[in-house]
Amino acid sequence: MNNIGFIGLGNLGFPIATNLLKAGYDIKVYNRTKEKASALIALGAKSVTHPFEVASPGGIVITLVSDDAALREVACDEFAKALGKGGLHISMSTIGADTSRALALHHKQFGVSYLAAPVFARPEAAAAKLGSVCISGGTVEERNRAKPFLTDGVAKQIFDFGDDPGAANVVKLIGNFMISASVEMMAESFALAEKNGVPTQAVYEMLTSTLFASPIFQNYGRIILGKKFKPASFRLLLGLKDINLVLQNGNQSQTPLPMANLVHDRMLRGVANGNAELDWSSFAEEAGRDAGII
Amino acid sequence: MNNIGFIGLGNLGFPIATNLLKAGYDIKVYNRTKEKASALIALGAKSVTHPFEVASPGGIVITLVSDDAALREVACDEFAKALGKGGLHISMSTIGADTSRALALHHKQFGVSYLAAPVFARPEAAAAKLGSVCISGGTVEERNRAKPFLTDGVAKQIFDFGDDPGAANVVKLIGNFMISASVEMMAESFALAEKNGVPTQAVYEMLTSTLFASPIFQNYGRIILGKKFKPASFRLLLGLKDINLVLQNGNQSQTPLPMANLVHDRMLRGVANGNAELDWSSFAEEAGRDAGII
Amino acid sequence: MNNIGFIGLGNLGFPIATNLLKAGYDIKVYNRTKEKASALIALGAKSVTHPFEVASPGGIVITLVSDDAALREVACDEFAKALGKGGLHISMSTIGADTSRALALHHKQFGVSYLAAPVFARPEAAAAKLGSVCISGGTVEERNRAKPFLTDGVAKQIFDFGDDPGAANVVKLIGNFMISASVEMMAESFALAEKNGVPTQAVYEMLTSTLFASPIFQNYGRIILGKKFKPASFRLLLGLKDINLVLQNGNQSQTPLPMANLVHDRMLRGVANGNAELDWSSFAEEAGRDAGII
Amino acid sequence: MNNIGFIGLGNLGFPIATNLLKAGYDIKVYNRTKEKASALIALGAKSVTHPFEVASPGGIVITLVSDDAALREVACDEFAKALGKGGLHISMSTIGADTSRALALHHKQFGVSYLAAPVFARPEAAAAKLGSVCISGGTVEERNRAKPFLTDGVAKQIFDFGDDPGAANVVKLIGNFMISASVEMMAESFALAEKNGVPTQAVYEMLTSTLFASPIFQNYGRIILGKKFKPASFRLLLGLKDINLVLQNGNQSQTPLPMANLVHDRMLRGVANGNAELDWSSFAEEAGRDAGII
Repeated sequence: MNNIGFIGLGNLGFPIATNLLKAGYDIKVYNRTKEKASALIALGAKSVTHPFEVASPGGIVITLVSDDAALREVACDEFAKALGKGGLHISMSTIGADTSRALALHHKQFGVSYLAAPVFARPEAAAAKLGSVCISGGTVEERNRAKPFLTDGVAKQIFDFGDDPGAANVVKLIGNFMISASVEMMAESFALAEKNGVPTQAVYEMLTSTLFASPIFQNYGRIILGKKFKPASFRLLLGLKDINLVLQNGNQSQTPLPMANLVHDRMLRGVANGNAELDWSSFAEEAGRDAGII
Repeated sequence: MNNIGFIGLGNLGFPIATNLLKAGYDIKVYNRTKEKASALIALGAKSVTHPFEVASPGGIVITLVSDDAALREVACDEFAKALGKGGLHISMSTIGADTSRALALHHKQFGVSYLAAPVFARPEAAAAKLGSVCISGGTVEERNRAKPFLTDGVAKQIFDFGDDPGAANVVKLIGNFMISASVEMMAESFALAEKNGVPTQAVYEMLTSTLFASPIFQNYGRIILGKKFKPASFRLLLGLKDINLVLQNGNQSQTPLPMANLVHDRMLRGVANGNAELDWSSFAEEAGRDAGII
Repeated sequence: MNNIGFIGLGNLGFPIATNLLKAGYDIKVYNRTKEKASALIALGAKSVTHPFEVASPGGIVITLVSDDAALREVACDEFAKALGKGGLHISMSTIGADTSRALALHHKQFGVSYLAAPVFARPEAAAAKLGSVCISGGTVEERNRAKPFLTDGVAKQIFDFGDDPGAANVVKLIGNFMISASVEMMAESFALAEKNGVPTQAVYEMLTSTLFASPIFQNYGRIILGKKFKPASFRLLLGLKDINLVLQNGNQSQTPLPMANLVHDRMLRGVANGNAELDWSSFAEEAGRDAGII
Repeated sequence: MNNIGFIGLGNLGFPIATNLLKAGYDIKVYNRTKEKASALIALGAKSVTHPFEVASPGGIVITLVSDDAALREVACDEFAKALGKGGLHISMSTIGADTSRALALHHKQFGVSYLAAPVFARPEAAAAKLGSVCISGGTVEERNRAKPFLTDGVAKQIFDFGDDPGAANVVKLIGNFMISASVEMMAESFALAEKNGVPTQAVYEMLTSTLFASPIFQNYGRIILGKKFKPASFRLLLGLKDINLVLQNGNQSQTPLPMANLVHDRMLRGVANGNAELDWSSFAEEAGRDAGII
C-alpha cells in the first residue's frame, strides 16, 4: 500500500513528509497553517481541509504535532472512525506517556492501532534520514508494518520498546531531558573556563573528541559557543513543554528529578525573559549571565 | 635522557609507572605505602625513602598524588632544590588551579619548570595507554620535552592549553564535573524508566548508540545498571574532593555552578552514608533511593 | 439568615462546621464518607445525599474539599442552579488560582457569586477559631457578607485581596510554600547542628525566641525535633499536591521557583518512600537521612 | 575590672565599642583603618598601633573582625602572650567552628581562655543593645565573666551553648543561613504574587502579621519590597563569606545542604554581577530577574 496520511508540517514534519513524497508515497497532508502545505502540494501531495480527511479505511496516518492537546484534538472519534478497522496511527509527536496510553485505548474501540514513534532528529538530520526513532505500542506485526514508513521518512535506526504505547514516549522524554542537561553542563563548564581565562574553544575540542565524543555534545557545544540560537531548530518554548512533560511524568510515577528541575528553571527563565522563540539551547546563556560575563 | 622520578603509585600512578618501566626508562619511585612499590621494584624500578630523592639535577619528576595538600607536601623546597636548574616537574594530579599556579612560582625560584598534566583515564585505560592528557604551564619547549614521557606512560592524546600552569587543571576539573553530571543524568533517567516499566537496558542501548554514543555514557551507564561499584576504579571520596575543587574554583572565579552543587550534594550524601570507598559513580543509586526503588 | 450549606468534613472542615453549629447556624452538610457526618448530625446538622442538596436558593455554601478536581466535581451546574440568584459560594479549599477563576465565571451564569477564602490553620487552631483567612473574588459587599461566617467558623483574622477570585488562592499557595521551605530550612539546620555535636533543642529555643519567633518555626520546629509526624495534621500527600499547585502556577505565570522545586523533590521522595500519610513536615527527616544520622 | 581591649570597628564593632565606652569602660581600640577609631577616641577610647597592644595581662579583649583569616592574623602568639594567664578573648566574629576550636587550643598554651560569642544584630539593633549573642567555649565561670561585657555592649539576650568553642559559631552560621533562606523564600513569593497581579505589599502584611510574624520576615520583607539595598547594613560579600562557611562546615561534617547551596548560588551571582557592596538581601532581586520583572 502506497497511501499515507500526514498531519503536522512543522520543523520535523515538513522534511519527513517531503522524504516520503520523494520516496514515492501518495500523501494527503493536513496542517493548521495552510502555507506550509503549498510546497508539498507542488511536490505532489494532496491537501485536505480537516485532519480526519487524511485517513483512508484501514490505512496509515502519521501525526507530528506540537503537543498533547493538539494531538488529542486531531486524534478524535471522527479521525479514528475514518481510519477504521485495520487502521494504523503512527504518532511521532513528543508527548506524555499518559496521552499515548489514553489514545491507544480510544483507538482500539474503532479497530485502530496506535503506535508511539517519537523521533530524535534536528531538522537537517530529519531531511537526511539520519533520525533515531523509538517505537512502542500495538503488536510486533503492527510495529513492523510501520517501520518502512519511518525508514523512508526519517529513521536511520529504529528502537523497539515493546507493547506499552507510552514506553517510546518515556524514552523520548528521557532523551530530551538528557540533551538539555548536557546543554547546562556545557554552559557551566564554558562559563568556568572563560572566567579562568582558559580558551573555551579548546576545551570544547578536547572534550568532544574524547570523553564526550558524541553528536549531542559536538552539535550543541558548537551552537552554544557560536551563540547560534536563531533561527531555532527547536524552539525554547517547546523545550520547556517537553521538560514539563518529564517533570509531570516524574510526579505521576513518583520519581524526584532534581536535575530536570534545574534545567526546567533555566528554560522557564529564558521564556520569561523573552527568548521563547530562540533555540532551546539558548538557555545556556544563563550560566554566563549568572557569572557576569554575558 | 632516560632517567625519571615518579611519586605516587595509586590506581593511576601504578599502571603509568609500569608502562614507563616497560618502555625502557630508569625509574626511581616513591610512594607513601611501601608495598605498592614492590611490584615495580621487581620490574627494575629503584625505590627511595624520601620523595625528593627521586629527583636528579636537571631531570624530570612525575607526581600523581591524591590531593593538593599531598602535592604541596611533596613538592617542597628540598624537592625543587634536588631537581634544580633545568629540572621539570610534571604534575599529573587532579588539583586546584591555584595550587598549580603557586607551585609554578615556587619552583621558578629554583630554576625548575612546573607543568600541569592531569590525565583522564580509568585504570585499565591508563594501563592500555589510552588516556587523554591536558597539559599547560612552562614554555612550549618544556611542554614538548614532557610529551614523550606522557605518551610512553599513559596518553593516547595530549591537549595543550598554553602557558598558564592552572589551565590544564581547570579543564581536568571541568571534565570530572561533566562526568559526574552525566552519572546523575543517567541515574535520574534510569529511575524514571524503571518507574514507568520501561526496560532500562534497552534505554541504555538506544541512548549510547545514538545521541550519547561516547565513552562516558557507555562505560558509566554499564557500571550504573550493573551496580558494579566495587572495587572502585575511582573512589567516591576522591570524586567528592574533585567536585569540591570545582566549586572552590567557582567561588574564586565568581562562577555560580548549580549543576555542580547538585552532584556535590549527591556525593556528600554517599560519603555520609558510608560509601566513601565505593566507585564515585555509586551516587547514582540515590536517584533510585529517592524514587523508592532501591 | 441563619442557614448554611457545608461540603467537606476533612481535618479542617470538621472543626469549622462544628464551630458554625455551636455558633447557632442551621447547617446542611455533605461529605463523601458518611461516618464523618454522624458526629455533626448528633450536634444538630442535617446530612444530605448529594452535594448540591446543601444549597438553598440565594443562600450560602462553604466548600472545603481536598483538591481542584474534587471541587470542580462538586461545584457543577446542578450546584450553581440550586444556589441560584444571590447565592454565595465560599470556597475554602487550597486550590489553583485558575480553578477559582474558572468557577467564578461558571457560577456567574447562574447568578451565583464565587469567593475564594482559603484558610491557614492546623486543625487545633481551626477548632479554636485562630485561623487566618485570605479572601478574594466577588464584590466588596459579597466579601463582607461572607466574613461573619468565616469569623464564626475559623478566622481570627481575615485578609482581603480584592476582586480577583484567584488572588486569595495565590496567597494561600505562597503561604504553604513558605511553610514547607521553613521546614526544609530547619531540617538542614538541625542536621548540621547535630553533626557538629551542638544540641538541637537549644538551637531551636534560641532561634524561635529571637529571629524566628513566629508560629511556623515554633510549631514545626517542635514537630520536627520530636518526630511527631503521626497522626498527620496535614498529610504529606496533600502537601505535595499544594507544592505542585505552586509550581504549576509558576509555570503558567512564568516564574522560576528553585526553592519550591527543592521542597517539591523532598516531598515527592517522601511519598515515593511510603510516607504519604504522615504529616507533611515529615520530609524534614530527609536532610538527616542524607547526612547519615537517621 | 574596667579595662577592655577591642579590635574591629566595622558596622557592628563600632556601635558595640561605643556602647561599652558609654557604659563607663576604659577601652583600648585597634582598627585596620585608622579613621574609624577617631570617633571613639573623641569619646575617650585609646587607640593603639598594633592589635596585641589592646591586651593587658589577665584582661579581656573583644574581637569583631571580618573573617577567619583576619582573626587568625590578629589572634597570634604575641596577642595571646600579651593577654597571658587569666586573659579572656571574647571572639564575636562570624567565623568557622574550626577556627574557634583551633584558636582555643592555641590560646590555652598561653593561659588564655577563648570564647566564641557571635552576635545577631543589624547595626541599629546593636546600637540599641537589642542583639542576641550565642556564647560557647571556656568554662561556665569564664562565660559568666564575659556576659556583663556582652550585655553592656550589645546583647539583649545571651544563649549559652556550652564548652565547645565552635558551638556558638555553628549556631551563628545556622542563623545566617536561615536568614538568607528566608530572603530567597520571600523573593520567590513576591515574584509569584507580582506575576499573578496580587499586590505584594498586602501579601507581606498578611504573612508577617500571622504565620511569619517575626523580625527576620518583617525587616527583610520591608527591605526587599522597598529595594533598600544601599547603604548596606551587611554587605553581600560578607553574606557570601558566611554561606561559604556554612557549606564548608557541611563538607567537614558530611551534611548535604541543598537549600544553602541555592542561596549560595544566588549570592555568588550577585557578587559576580557587581553587587558585592549592596546589602546581602539584594540577591532577592534575582528571583524577579529570572521571572522577567526586574
